[in-house]
Amino acid sequence: MVTPLDVAGLAAALIRIPSVTPDPGHSQEMLAGVLTEMGFDVVHLPFGEGAERTPNLFARLGSGSPHLCFAGHTDVVHPGAATWRHDPCSGTIEDGVLFGRGACDMKGGVAAFVAAASSFLASNPDWSGSVSFLLTGDEEGPARFGTCKVLEWMQENGHTPDFCVVGEPTNPSVMGEVIKIGRRGSMNARIVVEGRQGHVAYPHRADNPVHRLVRILDTLTAAPLDAGSQWFEPSSLQITSIDVGNVATNVIPASATAALNIRFNDLHTSASLGGWIETICRQHAERVVVTTECSGESFLTAPGGEVDVLRDAVMDVTGREPRLDTGGGTSDARFIAKYCPVAEFGLVGASMHQADECVAVEDLQTLTRVYVRLLERMMT
Amino acid sequence: MVTPLDVAGLAAALIRIPSVTPDPGHSQEMLAGVLTEMGFDVVHLPFGEGAERTPNLFARLGSGSPHLCFAGHTDVVHPGAATWRHDPCSGTIEDGVLFGRGACDMKGGVAAFVAAASSFLASNPDWSGSVSFLLTGDEEGPARFGTCKVLEWMQENGHTPDFCVVGEPTNPSVMGEVIKIGRRGSMNARIVVEGRQGHVAYPHRADNPVHRLVRILDTLTAAPLDAGSQWFEPSSLQITSIDVGNVATNVIPASATAALNIRFNDLHTSASLGGWIETICRQHAERVVVTTECSGESFLTAPGGEVDVLRDAVMDVTGREPRLDTGGGTSDARFIAKYCPVAEFGLVGASMHQADECVAVEDLQTLTRVYVRLLERMMT
Ligand SMILES: [Zn+2]
Ligand SMILES: [Zn+2]
Repeated sequence: MVTPLDVAGLAAALIRIPSVTPDPGHSQEMLAGVLTEMGFDVVHLPFGEGAERTPNLFARLGSGSPHLCFAGHTDVVHPGAATWRHDPCSGTIEDGVLFGRGACDMKGGVAAFVAAASSFLASNPDWSGSVSFLLTGDEEGPARFGTCKVLEWMQENGHTPDFCVVGEPTNPSVMGEVIKIGRRGSMNARIVVEGRQGHVAYPHRADNPVHRLVRILDTLTAAPLDAGSQWFEPSSLQITSIDVGNVATNVIPASATAALNIRFNDLHTSASLGGWIETICRQHAERVVVTTECSGESFLTAPGGEVDVLRDAVMDVTGREPRLDTGGGTSDARFIAKYCPVAEFGLVGASMHQADECVAVEDLQTLTRVYVRLLERMMT
Repeated sequence: MVTPLDVAGLAAALIRIPSVTPDPGHSQEMLAGVLTEMGFDVVHLPFGEGAERTPNLFARLGSGSPHLCFAGHTDVVHPGAATWRHDPCSGTIEDGVLFGRGACDMKGGVAAFVAAASSFLASNPDWSGSVSFLLTGDEEGPARFGTCKVLEWMQENGHTPDFCVVGEPTNPSVMGEVIKIGRRGSMNARIVVEGRQGHVAYPHRADNPVHRLVRILDTLTAAPLDAGSQWFEPSSLQITSIDVGNVATNVIPASATAALNIRFNDLHTSASLGGWIETICRQHAERVVVTTECSGESFLTAPGGEVDVLRDAVMDVTGREPRLDTGGGTSDARFIAKYCPVAEFGLVGASMHQADECVAVEDLQTLTRVYVRLLERMMT
């Protein structure tokens, strides 16, 4: 017999366990105990060696379909240098608001998963399907030995879910505003143009790489990459730095470097964009080296199917029809999208990564009810 | 009675007196002795205080017209780190070539001035007019307390010349190739664009100053400044550096800076160019600061008059018709041009500022004869 857990108490308990990226794993030990008590099969899945060792946890209850997986992270970003109103690890509740690092991103979300499972199991003895948890200790860091590795293991061991809900904070200001159904891709590019050094008084004996780089960058930024697609806002290219480092005012420098970042929608891939950059560079410079690095391709779980079920659950509880959004930065959902449909719905993220990160206890309860409603809609 | 001096011996003696900018003045003391012996009224004119103290010398013989002034510098650039075939201060003559720092730029030229005056005076007892020397100890440095200050003093004391010949090396490879009748102007500009910092994923909440700067620089370099003028090659704008210094690939930076240098002909002034840059900056950015610094406006002594006399003297001696040129870097002629017609003719400059700076003894003698011939054409 499962007893419903108090979501605020569980969130506060998680906040009190220090877990700045990479989480040393104690928070996962605690959750393992709670989940085992609830009947889950819990597997600890540390990946990476030495300093890269990352604690991860997979827990599943049931073996049937549909298989709903709640995915999230137990690590938090550093509290930073700013002064907090309450100790960032105290988990203080004041006037109905829980304070602490991870309150909304995303120890509060993880607590809501677990509390929702306990409530659901307590009230629905006749449910069918399976519920699982995918928790990583490195989402805020390089994320090389976290969610992506656990997903490989899950596939190898017959645990690929039918639907995955990521509990990252998605709501700008009130619960029920936004479900994220995809994310833009993100890539960095570095352009190094080589020229020929010389004196500014004799430019014909030199080859100014800065002029070539300016042409390249002007061409790259002359027009928007696209006008957006059905579910995505327009892609965006931002030059983040240009560096020449020449302090001699009478010298044409030998080389010039630019860095840029592209957030791209489903009209592009990192490969198509890399090819486009390379082509434009070649139009303006012979000796140019372009290096690109993609931290995630764009992905989308098209509305319909499980996304609609999640949206209905949100509407049932909050009375709001959430906007289906693909904006913002990246999340581990980029890894999950390769395996199964995935959507993100969590708390209000206004204070995430800031001093005095906090969440309303009422929002924690609302989120728990949304997850319970999703379980009910899928499994009863 | 004046005795003709040996130009190579005088040049070697000057090379043996160390005088890296700022010249400590011993070379001018030596020349003062020689010129006094020849009957010149010599005035030492040190300007500047402390570390900026710059030795200068003005010497004049005669009080009538025409007044021809030979202008030059006794300071030299540092020998540098490279190994020299002969000690840079030894003044060694090997196979008819004099080696040493300043051989062509321009202790050789100064020696030719003085040797020419001695020869002229020895052979032309009935000359009329005046001959003067303007020598500074800081031409290769900031030049703030050198030629420009002496010229002020000369004007105040009734010594403004009718024509001035600067003895900088002007010939690319053989004597008689080039007379410089002007120089392009040179100015530096610094453009700082302020934007609003932000995350690359949310560019609408930021204002990327790099994009604005790229537009500005692309516009500034889109077309040549001009196609050249009668006596000048086209003006040239070179971007020498762009610096942002943002290492965070996910951050839109707060500001971006560019440095550029313009070498400009007589179709522009530093003020007209500064206004043009400012206008283009304003078209692309609201918060932009442009600072400019002009190290010399363009100037020209139009052919005809004294320039033709100098050209004829060069042709008399070398058999070559010198090209009238305005190319290359700046020289102290930029200061002189504000007071009187000025032209530059000196030695072969191929080795100037390099290791193993040298000059053929024959070239020293040719240059001396050119200066003698100029004196004869003007004053006999
Ligand atoms: Zn998070
Ligand atoms: Zn010089």
